[in-house]
Amino acid sequence: MQIDIQFVPSPPNPKLLSNRVVIVIDVLRATSVMVHALSEGAIEIIPVATVGEAFQRVKTFPSGTALLGGERGSRKIEGFDLGNSPKEYVADRVRGKRLILTTTNGTKAFHFVSSGEEVMVGSFFNIEAVAQRCVEIGRDLLLFPSGDEGNFSLEDTVCGGMLVDLIIKRKKKPIALTDASHAAHILYQRFEDNLSEAFHLSHHGRELIDLGLGDDLIFCAQTDITNIVPIFKEGAIRSI
Amino acid sequence: MQIDIQFVPSPPNPKLLSNRVVIVIDVLRATSVMVHALSEGAIEIIPVATVGEAFQRVKTFPSGTALLGGERGSRKIEGFDLGNSPKEYVADRVRGKRLILTTTNGTKAFHFVSSGEEVMVGSFFNIEAVAQRCVEIGRDLLLFPSGDEGNFSLEDTVCGGMLVDLIIKRKKKPIALTDASHAAHILYQRFEDNLSEAFHLSHHGRELIDLGLGDDLIFCAQTDITNIVPIFKEGAIRSI
Repeated sequence: MQIDIQFVPSPPNPKLLSNRVVIVIDVLRATSVMVHALSEGAIEIIPVATVGEAFQRVKTFPSGTALLGGERGSRKIEGFDLGNSPKEYVADRVRGKRLILTTTNGTKAFHFVSSGEEVMVGSFFNIEAVAQRCVEIGRDLLLFPSGDEGNFSLEDTVCGGMLVDLIIKRKKKPIALTDASHAAHILYQRFEDNLSEAFHLSHHGRELIDLGLGDDLIFCAQTDITNIVPIFKEGAIRSI
Repeated sequence: MQIDIQFVPSPPNPKLLSNRVVIVIDVLRATSVMVHALSEGAIEIIPVATVGEAFQRVKTFPSGTALLGGERGSRKIEGFDLGNSPKEYVADRVRGKRLILTTTNGTKAFHFVSSGEEVMVGSFFNIEAVAQRCVEIGRDLLLFPSGDEGNFSLEDTVCGGMLVDLIIKRKKKPIALTDASHAAHILYQRFEDNLSEAFHLSHHGRELIDLGLGDDLIFCAQTDITNIVPIFKEGAIRSI
């Protein structure tokens, strides 16, 4: 079993993807939103690339059954029901609903890796459950941080490094690491006693603080608060 | 002053490059060879992309004045004068000579970043001198690890992280770090007491050990053994 991590978001080699289980990570905040919403009873999440596509898509469902969520420039989009803070995605708002979600980095990442053997949604919220499923499946993994507008993202990589750590500790057999997954593991070890420190150092974390959204950093640094493992399949994300 | 590092080698955005001083790093072993050869008296190094180009190029110089060096699959190329171990590039062989060099990762990297405001050659051998020049110039920097066949390279990134560390310590004013240069700095801090440990963990380091070239790992981990800062300009690398 080998674990690799792609540091910069771009479409991976399709040949590589077809043999790998992929874990998409965008802790600030798209995958945190997805995991939280599904744990609060949303039926499914449809990630779309553009705001226009989101408005088109929501019309295809019976009125009142689907909600629009996401952000541009980290802010709620005009005409949308919800922004991109996982704290908004609580049972009262989302139970029994379908969510159409569009964000700057996270939703695009799913389309880059859609040909993976399986595509899981990772965040600190469900990290133990994701690690457990990776160990059970036993296939080669590609961790896929969504990045920060095309650039390397510290907080997503630290989350990937925590996944490496948990898998190594659970798996009996040796795990092969690449230089990149080794580096992610080391970065996680630097922040393991204080994950939100990584968020506060990161470019995107500081942007959220500047916008008055600093509470989301503390919220998204909670580990292992749910056992769900969402899977992206045929354009939608559902819990298994 | 901002320091960024590009983790995966590919042509950077030309707009970004035109305002940046670039430091190319391929410690195992191309930039270590370059720095060592120039410190031992070579006149200049011409990095070329292919073996064919190297044979063409050497014919354009008077017989006996230019040497062919480099590797494919980490081994010396048939018909070449020298391989890719910095230990081969000693005064007896290279003083007064021009070197035509082709390697798997390092020589390509120079062509990716040739439009940078200035392009320096970095390695552990000359790291203090490179840091000093970066501080003196005071421009935004792009550290450019050459990678491992297109992938992230741990040892080059640790070298980049040491450069970040030295610049922060020398510069009086605050330095802006990106998520990537922050991560490189943390990776360096993990290995600062034992740089060759990073080489032994890295994919390319282990490949060299398997080929019986493990001595090069210890040799290339020597820091600050020369004060030269080679610059890539108009197709050639010379000391300033």
